[in-house]
Amino acid sequence: MSIPAPSSGPRTDLADQLPALREQYAALTELGLRLDLTRGKPSAQQLDLAEPMLALPGEGVHTDADGVDVRNYGGLDGLPQLRRIFAELLDVPVDQLLALGNASLTLMHDTFAYAFLWGPPGSPRPWGREEKVKVVCPVPGYDRHFSVCEAFGVEMVTVPMTPDGPDAEAVAALVADDPTVKGLWVVPTYANPDGAVVSEAVARRLVSMPTAAPDFRILWDNAYAVHHLTGDEVKSANAIDLAAAAGNPDRVLMYASTSKISWAGAGVAFLASSPANIAWYKSHLSVQSIGPDKVNQLRHALFFGSAGGVRAHMRKHRDILAPKFDAVNRILTQRLGDLGVAHWTVPQGGYFVSLDVVPGTAARVVELAKGAGIALTPAGSTHPYGKDPLDANIRLAPSMPPLAEVEQAMDAVATCVLLAAAERA
Amino acid sequence: MSIPAPSSGPRTDLADQLPALREQYAALTELGLRLDLTRGKPSAQQLDLAEPMLALPGEGVHTDADGVDVRNYGGLDGLPQLRRIFAELLDVPVDQLLALGNASLTLMHDTFAYAFLWGPPGSPRPWGREEKVKVVCPVPGYDRHFSVCEAFGVEMVTVPMTPDGPDAEAVAALVADDPTVKGLWVVPTYANPDGAVVSEAVARRLVSMPTAAPDFRILWDNAYAVHHLTGDEVKSANAIDLAAAAGNPDRVLMYASTSKISWAGAGVAFLASSPANIAWYKSHLSVQSIGPDKVNQLRHALFFGSAGGVRAHMRKHRDILAPKFDAVNRILTQRLGDLGVAHWTVPQGGYFVSLDVVPGTAARVVELAKGAGIALTPAGSTHPYGKDPLDANIRLAPSMPPLAEVEQAMDAVATCVLLAAAERA
Repeated sequence: MSIPAPSSGPRTDLADQLPALREQYAALTELGLRLDLTRGKPSAQQLDLAEPMLALPGEGVHTDADGVDVRNYGGLDGLPQLRRIFAELLDVPVDQLLALGNASLTLMHDTFAYAFLWGPPGSPRPWGREEKVKVVCPVPGYDRHFSVCEAFGVEMVTVPMTPDGPDAEAVAALVADDPTVKGLWVVPTYANPDGAVVSEAVARRLVSMPTAAPDFRILWDNAYAVHHLTGDEVKSANAIDLAAAAGNPDRVLMYASTSKISWAGAGVAFLASSPANIAWYKSHLSVQSIGPDKVNQLRHALFFGSAGGVRAHMRKHRDILAPKFDAVNRILTQRLGDLGVAHWTVPQGGYFVSLDVVPGTAARVVELAKGAGIALTPAGSTHPYGKDPLDANIRLAPSMPPLAEVEQAMDAVATCVLLAAAERA
Repeated sequence: MSIPAPSSGPRTDLADQLPALREQYAALTELGLRLDLTRGKPSAQQLDLAEPMLALPGEGVHTDADGVDVRNYGGLDGLPQLRRIFAELLDVPVDQLLALGNASLTLMHDTFAYAFLWGPPGSPRPWGREEKVKVVCPVPGYDRHFSVCEAFGVEMVTVPMTPDGPDAEAVAALVADDPTVKGLWVVPTYANPDGAVVSEAVARRLVSMPTAAPDFRILWDNAYAVHHLTGDEVKSANAIDLAAAAGNPDRVLMYASTSKISWAGAGVAFLASSPANIAWYKSHLSVQSIGPDKVNQLRHALFFGSAGGVRAHMRKHRDILAPKFDAVNRILTQRLGDLGVAHWTVPQGGYFVSLDVVPGTAARVVELAKGAGIALTPAGSTHPYGKDPLDANIRLAPSMPPLAEVEQAMDAVATCVLLAAAERA
């Protein structure tokens, strides 16, 4: 991942260009575009990669490798056959990995629900009985993490992201003396939205830093663990192992899913953690569920076959996605490169580009884009409570539209960025 | 449904028969049986009925009737195409019916979770902030309902079942003055375990009775709505309509699933309720999930095609299940009919037979059966906290083993019932 430094070109000329930019924008609105860069959704072409799964497991195929009838009740941990594949990919022991429903978001939400209702291992009391619970949110970050916190009445405290993950010293300072700080969100691989990959040094600091709360947890949302955009298939640090080595084995809960491997919404979600956390999670899950959809898990296991099968499949995704991300960087560079009005990430994986525009103009850029028929994620959505104090950050999600539309949209976004900047110059 | 009155035959002779029964039991243990009547699991033969679904929706088929790509994110309410089918079967409006994950148990659990964390519409405060929450549990009842209550620290208060459903007057008396009574479990159609079907009169009473709690809810677990064992396809009362008519529109939440229609664990679960309750549920669900597995919902919609398709499919289940239930009744009648040591239900649908043995001997019967290689649901599991005050009730689940094994098992159970009775005679 590389984040270009903000360009230092001449912004002063922009005011002069305002009339020309207004004309350019007016012409844009005439085009009647209807483009959507809001969410990190896979494109139809990507979903097609798993097309054979629509006919799997196939008639007569309803037992797993261990002879279990996947059509019947049971198997709370998920199918061992599938867990073995993802244990290798996520670098965790099979017996510390659960394969569950169709959404890691549900597992993250339910971790909060269980913690608030009953408290995680080591809690003096359920989080719902605390006067106040705070969670550290690196920014820019993922809006659905913030929604979960808001729903539970959690106070969100921000720290900046760095190219190596959350600013670990800032986190360490927040958690050291304040027992109300109970958690930290991390997207360790190709972070949403800035593409950062957590380094071993940052991970070590986060899992070993002293915390005032005895039940402090890191919510390690490894949503893009195998979602590379280049041949350099990086790995974020293994936080579960490092936490155990640091004497804090229960600090990390890792989440992952096949939502952007097989199908968004019809995939399989995973939870990995220490034996104590897994036992805790299962003790509550067993009241809520008799077991996950094992037919869907068998379907996935048969389609992918092995961890290598998943890796090969992800390269097909890369072939579709990389040109779109290249287009974003190419067009932003062409249009905005030397003007000092924006900088953006050039992620090596994941689903997003984080675009920083002239402070105070992000909401205006999104408004202008909307006027030209281009839906962008609302400005502020990368920050808790939807409030970006600088009004500068916009998350771009180029995965869903076809390449030609991504190019068209980015050119239009560049015009909007320039116009908003000129309006304030 | 008919529940034969307890036989009034001669129990006095039993003591004399003790030596003979001991010999009979000893011979039984020699057989080395390994039979399981514990849970209401469908048999492999029943699961085979949906075998074509293993290859559905089929390659190239990934849009629903409304043109939505089911492989991508979204659609929190579930697939309209499938909801239309089950709205007809459950007799509710489509827009008051959600099609969600693979287990209605999860929806019931999450109703409690949302209520405890945030309170349902009309609550003065979240249930988790109340000093005490009580829920009325008709007995005999379903152990997983009790587990949910236990997990949330809910005090369970029992009322007796009648052939028309819960004893409505007993319920009405409990809820009238005590605002801590917040809920009532009901299995309206072919109740687990006693097969009762809620009559219109009982439903009317339950939905219109005054309750001290303003946020009182009936958890209407319609797990066996279309699970008939005879040609007389009865319908339990439409509680949602009746509640609305009685001026208590938000009182009833109905749950259902295809776990025993298509596949146990790989089916689709449903929630139906008033517009206010559905909006409330969705407001919390939207933080927990981006949407259910729509591919699986399309698979179901294509396989069944219509409500009529589901009904026809259920008749195939009936053809497999009815002989097993007939065998239970036949063998119990032959072996125990005139001896005054037991009575049992003859359900017209559902998955269970409720067997009452000589008070004080149920645990002993289960123990004897275990010694002979026959697993029965633990005595007491049909009562809250696993405690049947009479130690008399045993739930029999004859669906899973092949017919010959059901016959063998029931003959053995009869011997155990007799021996336990004789030991106490």
